[in-house]
Amino acid sequence: MSVDLIRPPSTLLVEPQVRAALVEDLGRAGDITSDLTIAPDAKGTVRLMARKPGVLAGLNAAEIAFHLVDPSLSIDVAIRDGGRLNPGDRIASISGSLRAILTAERVALNFAGHLSGVATTTAALVDAIAGTRARIVCTRKTTPGLLEKYAVRCGGGFNHRFGLDDAVLIKDNHIAAAGGIAAVLERVRAGLGHMTKVEIEVDTLAQLEEALALGADTILLDNMSNDDLRRAVAMNAGRAVLEASGSVTAANVRAIAETGVDTISSGAITHSATSLDLGLDF
Amino acid sequence: MSVDLIRPPSTLLVEPQVRAALVEDLGRAGDITSDLTIAPDAKGTVRLMARKPGVLAGLNAAEIAFHLVDPSLSIDVAIRDGGRLNPGDRIASISGSLRAILTAERVALNFAGHLSGVATTTAALVDAIAGTRARIVCTRKTTPGLLEKYAVRCGGGFNHRFGLDDAVLIKDNHIAAAGGIAAVLERVRAGLGHMTKVEIEVDTLAQLEEALALGADTILLDNMSNDDLRRAVAMNAGRAVLEASGSVTAANVRAIAETGVDTISSGAITHSATSLDLGLDF
Amino acid sequence: MSVDLIRPPSTLLVEPQVRAALVEDLGRAGDITSDLTIAPDAKGTVRLMARKPGVLAGLNAAEIAFHLVDPSLSIDVAIRDGGRLNPGDRIASISGSLRAILTAERVALNFAGHLSGVATTTAALVDAIAGTRARIVCTRKTTPGLLEKYAVRCGGGFNHRFGLDDAVLIKDNHIAAAGGIAAVLERVRAGLGHMTKVEIEVDTLAQLEEALALGADTILLDNMSNDDLRRAVAMNAGRAVLEASGSVTAANVRAIAETGVDTISSGAITHSATSLDLGLDF
Amino acid sequence: MSVDLIRPPSTLLVEPQVRAALVEDLGRAGDITSDLTIAPDAKGTVRLMARKPGVLAGLNAAEIAFHLVDPSLSIDVAIRDGGRLNPGDRIASISGSLRAILTAERVALNFAGHLSGVATTTAALVDAIAGTRARIVCTRKTTPGLLEKYAVRCGGGFNHRFGLDDAVLIKDNHIAAAGGIAAVLERVRAGLGHMTKVEIEVDTLAQLEEALALGADTILLDNMSNDDLRRAVAMNAGRAVLEASGSVTAANVRAIAETGVDTISSGAITHSATSLDLGLDF
Amino acid sequence: MSVDLIRPPSTLLVEPQVRAALVEDLGRAGDITSDLTIAPDAKGTVRLMARKPGVLAGLNAAEIAFHLVDPSLSIDVAIRDGGRLNPGDRIASISGSLRAILTAERVALNFAGHLSGVATTTAALVDAIAGTRARIVCTRKTTPGLLEKYAVRCGGGFNHRFGLDDAVLIKDNHIAAAGGIAAVLERVRAGLGHMTKVEIEVDTLAQLEEALALGADTILLDNMSNDDLRRAVAMNAGRAVLEASGSVTAANVRAIAETGVDTISSGAITHSATSLDLGLDF
Amino acid sequence: MSVDLIRPPSTLLVEPQVRAALVEDLGRAGDITSDLTIAPDAKGTVRLMARKPGVLAGLNAAEIAFHLVDPSLSIDVAIRDGGRLNPGDRIASISGSLRAILTAERVALNFAGHLSGVATTTAALVDAIAGTRARIVCTRKTTPGLLEKYAVRCGGGFNHRFGLDDAVLIKDNHIAAAGGIAAVLERVRAGLGHMTKVEIEVDTLAQLEEALALGADTILLDNMSNDDLRRAVAMNAGRAVLEASGSVTAANVRAIAETGVDTISSGAITHSATSLDLGLDF
Repeated sequence: MSVDLIRPPSTLLVEPQVRAALVEDLGRAGDITSDLTIAPDAKGTVRLMARKPGVLAGLNAAEIAFHLVDPSLSIDVAIRDGGRLNPGDRIASISGSLRAILTAERVALNFAGHLSGVATTTAALVDAIAGTRARIVCTRKTTPGLLEKYAVRCGGGFNHRFGLDDAVLIKDNHIAAAGGIAAVLERVRAGLGHMTKVEIEVDTLAQLEEALALGADTILLDNMSNDDLRRAVAMNAGRAVLEASGSVTAANVRAIAETGVDTISSGAITHSATSLDLGLDF
Repeated sequence: MSVDLIRPPSTLLVEPQVRAALVEDLGRAGDITSDLTIAPDAKGTVRLMARKPGVLAGLNAAEIAFHLVDPSLSIDVAIRDGGRLNPGDRIASISGSLRAILTAERVALNFAGHLSGVATTTAALVDAIAGTRARIVCTRKTTPGLLEKYAVRCGGGFNHRFGLDDAVLIKDNHIAAAGGIAAVLERVRAGLGHMTKVEIEVDTLAQLEEALALGADTILLDNMSNDDLRRAVAMNAGRAVLEASGSVTAANVRAIAETGVDTISSGAITHSATSLDLGLDF
Repeated sequence: MSVDLIRPPSTLLVEPQVRAALVEDLGRAGDITSDLTIAPDAKGTVRLMARKPGVLAGLNAAEIAFHLVDPSLSIDVAIRDGGRLNPGDRIASISGSLRAILTAERVALNFAGHLSGVATTTAALVDAIAGTRARIVCTRKTTPGLLEKYAVRCGGGFNHRFGLDDAVLIKDNHIAAAGGIAAVLERVRAGLGHMTKVEIEVDTLAQLEEALALGADTILLDNMSNDDLRRAVAMNAGRAVLEASGSVTAANVRAIAETGVDTISSGAITHSATSLDLGLDF
Repeated sequence: MSVDLIRPPSTLLVEPQVRAALVEDLGRAGDITSDLTIAPDAKGTVRLMARKPGVLAGLNAAEIAFHLVDPSLSIDVAIRDGGRLNPGDRIASISGSLRAILTAERVALNFAGHLSGVATTTAALVDAIAGTRARIVCTRKTTPGLLEKYAVRCGGGFNHRFGLDDAVLIKDNHIAAAGGIAAVLERVRAGLGHMTKVEIEVDTLAQLEEALALGADTILLDNMSNDDLRRAVAMNAGRAVLEASGSVTAANVRAIAETGVDTISSGAITHSATSLDLGLDF
Repeated sequence: MSVDLIRPPSTLLVEPQVRAALVEDLGRAGDITSDLTIAPDAKGTVRLMARKPGVLAGLNAAEIAFHLVDPSLSIDVAIRDGGRLNPGDRIASISGSLRAILTAERVALNFAGHLSGVATTTAALVDAIAGTRARIVCTRKTTPGLLEKYAVRCGGGFNHRFGLDDAVLIKDNHIAAAGGIAAVLERVRAGLGHMTKVEIEVDTLAQLEEALALGADTILLDNMSNDDLRRAVAMNAGRAVLEASGSVTAANVRAIAETGVDTISSGAITHSATSLDLGLDF
Repeated sequence: MSVDLIRPPSTLLVEPQVRAALVEDLGRAGDITSDLTIAPDAKGTVRLMARKPGVLAGLNAAEIAFHLVDPSLSIDVAIRDGGRLNPGDRIASISGSLRAILTAERVALNFAGHLSGVATTTAALVDAIAGTRARIVCTRKTTPGLLEKYAVRCGGGFNHRFGLDDAVLIKDNHIAAAGGIAAVLERVRAGLGHMTKVEIEVDTLAQLEEALALGADTILLDNMSNDDLRRAVAMNAGRAVLEASGSVTAANVRAIAETGVDTISSGAITHSATSLDLGLDF
């Protein structure tokens, strides 16, 4: 896995998300259980542990959660985001106020567990296509807050566009509304600056041929059979970047990759990843 | 399913979440694809469709998404939250500006798909225990924003506490820090107002006996075997509310319910629910 | 006064309130008087003093105010929240930039003075019922921001629910709308999770009898005479928690407490507490 | 009472405050009592009533509270801010969803009750000095959110500065830090634009003489005896605006006013006003 | 000017900016002048006029300003964003409450005047290169809030990247840190998804040759002489998109465009545009 | 230039503005170029340099930008706000993470460049009237965020009111609506507290005479010829503060000042200042 993929987002972007989660959990009265049962000066060390195999993501968010509740907590990190986890692996140790650790525990685990789930699900697809030229990419089928995009990278995947505004993705409805592939590409090129990528979705090889003839440089092949994907790769002859999309699973992804497409996108790695089981040992 | 469970949260609480998701997706330049390819005055009607069987939740959030992008969109609702979905069911129709519909589409589907996934996963457990006295309840293993708590109710489940401050949940670390079950209960009762519930977690039947003797009225039985759960129900003799917790699945939930416990809590119905496949037909 | 009551809310919750007050006071140009008249490097020490007798609350908010204006101010605390104050008592000393101290002064005093006023008013009721079994509790008749709930605890009182969502309080209009006490309790029990308390308000002993028969476990006795309160306590025979409510004053609270009720609620301790006179000595 | 004083603040400023109060009260689950007990389509009309004599303020905020919870509520106003209230007076009627009315009730009453308390307390001072030349003004001893400044106007009072930045108020510490009255006035005049007023606080008649000689145009006479105030008025001979300050009560305010000062400031009208008893009749 | 360029940003993005400007201007007490001098029910119609020639931008923001202050104001638009203005042209008429119109006036004019200034400055460059193949593009030298990017489009220009995250722009420091053009391009390609454009800045023709050989598809030619630009265009032979940058003025832009480059970027059209004189006629 | 003018606004007010600019620039994925091309542990020192002559303002905002991105950056300041700049002057050096420096660079330069542009433009007017009694003041024709008001002071100018609420400025429309100068002044005096200044705009010497007779203490002379300004100064005979307004330029400002007016206001120093060229040297 390339270290270049794992660039944790700026604390300026992550902290507000973690803060909002903590504020929501603290509600109006705070952690009444810990405040009532644990002495203010009780100290301890807990270990953040992997309980299932997977790939770590979101440690940064967990660290921010602990530090927002108590800036004096000290955190010793053993495994960093992108690292492979086995059950029983110690990810990090957190030392300091027991009250603070218990107050931050659930939010920290919610972030790290969910994001590690995304990374783990992504890594399963990435591992399955090892040795092919294809890359796994995510979609906009995410929960808000965008850390899932980073978790995909932790799992060895790549990002598609981040929102509606950083790249053009022309789908069937756009083509229909504009009056065809030629018309839609012309409209887009007339109005778009030179620093924004354009991808167009095609459903058939005939559409692909038209798009290639018009010089499209990134083309999404929607729900095509592997045979058609192979034909598309041949027709393309290296001109455009080809993206395969639709019902990708760990079971079928290698066959798709072997058709020779450049990227394979999956919504499931974000919208249907299950949480990875992490926990605190006291 | 009781209609009483399905009380959509106030728009004052839901709108900020949907607005934040839209603002994040719009980024700095908005939906550049639709703006470039679709005429500002193009109109149309789309249908929000179920593509897989399940239980609907989050329609309210989807409606808010469409109306935030364009208050003049009209929405005709055919199926309400809590309704059972079959593939091909029309949930709602949205009419008006095509640009606006396409701009709001992904955020609306992300909310409705995720929350319907939670409701569907919950309903699977609820259905599995039909006829027993037990209730399915959620945990704090959620993503921030709290609509998942509502989705659990759409699926026929009940809510546990919403955060750290609306109820006391005494876990093993709190018991240890306070010096035992008697000490921890005394501390909590000394400091807590009369409108806050207290639950205490026990790992063994000996602890249960101690908690019952001390008059605990809600007890979490953590990771007990079904045999122990049955013994716990017998020991309790109706005095306290008993909650079973730990590794609940659709496969084992009925057996747990048949031990006679009052509630069964599951983190998986929120943290590991997969998205329900919904889509827009143009 | 039990130390368990005095759990200062998390800085994550308090700081935004203090910050908002400072930003409002600073406006667009800041403290123009101090900026124009005091050298940037002038230093000094001031003492936060009690000028009237009372109970301290809100010192935490005052400290946050000083530190938000200037993180380098040092604060030496002599008396903590919940402590009894006599005129001339030094509560704390603040050392550092004179400009910063003067800029933060009014906001710090506004928080501490108002909250100490709430604590002092509460303590007067708490003192008045010393030796009885009753507890003084607050209501939702507060100014937003919730520190008043904490100030009530500093004064030896207990908290009722914090908002509309952390407990059910069934009043006359809810009973009427649902069709009576039996109907309303049935509806609530059908839809509510097991971690939320339910209280029902009754105006007559007949209603009390009905509520007790239906197993209500917390009952608000609204505006009853002390004779009726005594009868209610006798009828209850220890089954439910009984709360007396309505026109409670320092003059009549002991008589109410001596009826044997469990809790006595007062809106006046929050909505009509006068500020306690605190000041800075230079 | 001059109608010019009663200029309700822009909804752009008031709505965020009311919204925050509602969001705090709704918490994470909303008004669970009303949602569980009242049918979604139940309608009704309630009357906002005065239960004690006083002066109305904050009706605007109450209206915003009802409309934020449910924009379809209709409100019929009988008495406007600044109006005198007698027990039993109907202030307004609110018609529509019973659920919505009950959900908004407490926040609406909290705003209107607190602000009417400020207006009533102010009006008592204003009435007491009727016929003199003096005006009652408030201070910065307020709770954040600034509606109290408006409530003072509803009670017939006038506003002092709103924050640290809209006027200069030179107090003893500023004078000491700058090196005397002459030095401090020179510094302020050198750095201040021509649209900001300057007031200087003096403790003695000697200081007053110095300030007048230097051309100060607004002077705060701090804690002076009425005899000294009279001497100050004579010394001033109409040159500067004179403000009397310190321990003003309804009992002593007329005597202060009769000394001939221009304005009398009171912190108690904001920081120690008790809530006016308002309620909803169903 | 292509209508495709003029896509006003979503109200979801613009309204918060306008609201913040109004709230800042209203401060704590609102428009005290208009509130004190104009009757609440005074009505009128004003005309938004051009006082100097130019290109209109920001009318949308001005409309939002008027409607935020008073949703009942009616606005009749005569000229839309992107339209050419001559002195005396009526842009729009606003009818309704005089108080509201005066309160919103300055914020509305500040937005429209500033953004029309950007559009006008842009249009001067666009007009100057009419008939060449080059496009005028903006930079990130903007004031926050991003409406300037839209104003550039209103003036006939195109947008470069909107922020640090929607495209890669490799500058000299990045090249140096990565160890040269080949190394930096390799690093970027290894870590970047397929939907993000990459531009690399070169200072010399030798660097250009290296970048072209490595297949760079967008190249910024920094501060080159027109002779070097011409050589660059020849060397490129249509392979990459070429952007000229550095000290572009209305006087020299045509000569630059005639070198054959594809785009010409200017920071001055955003950071140094002077406001266009617009005003309200009563 | 008086050091009293240069009072940097509180970090509590500046930081949110700088934070918002950084968050906008970072977008959803952060500085992808620097993250991909620069090693996380690469360190360096850069120098913030003046490239054109001018007056510095906004260094504080630039420092905050660097520290928000990376609190461990160290900044050595050579020239402070208000200092005169020559091309090649080193303003400050920033040392630490190269990634962080590059990420913050543009936002830091945008603030400092724009605000120094305002200070420089202001200083040109201030220098031009040296030796006269007049002061240069700004207007409300600013971009939101208010640092421009501070930049005006850095350039030796003074501030007019900061918003609609900190002073009264009666313009022609207010006079007309109230029914004349006498009526408008009476209304304002009846409703306004004693700490708010009042200025009235007059277009003719006849109006000036009326305003002076009514005791107006600050008068704006709108668009009068220099001859009329001279006559106004003579008529005034030192009674009111006189402000000249309308089409002030560096070319005509001295002649205006020599008429004897007290203040000269200019919108152009804020709305039409061009950015001062600052840059980072690596």
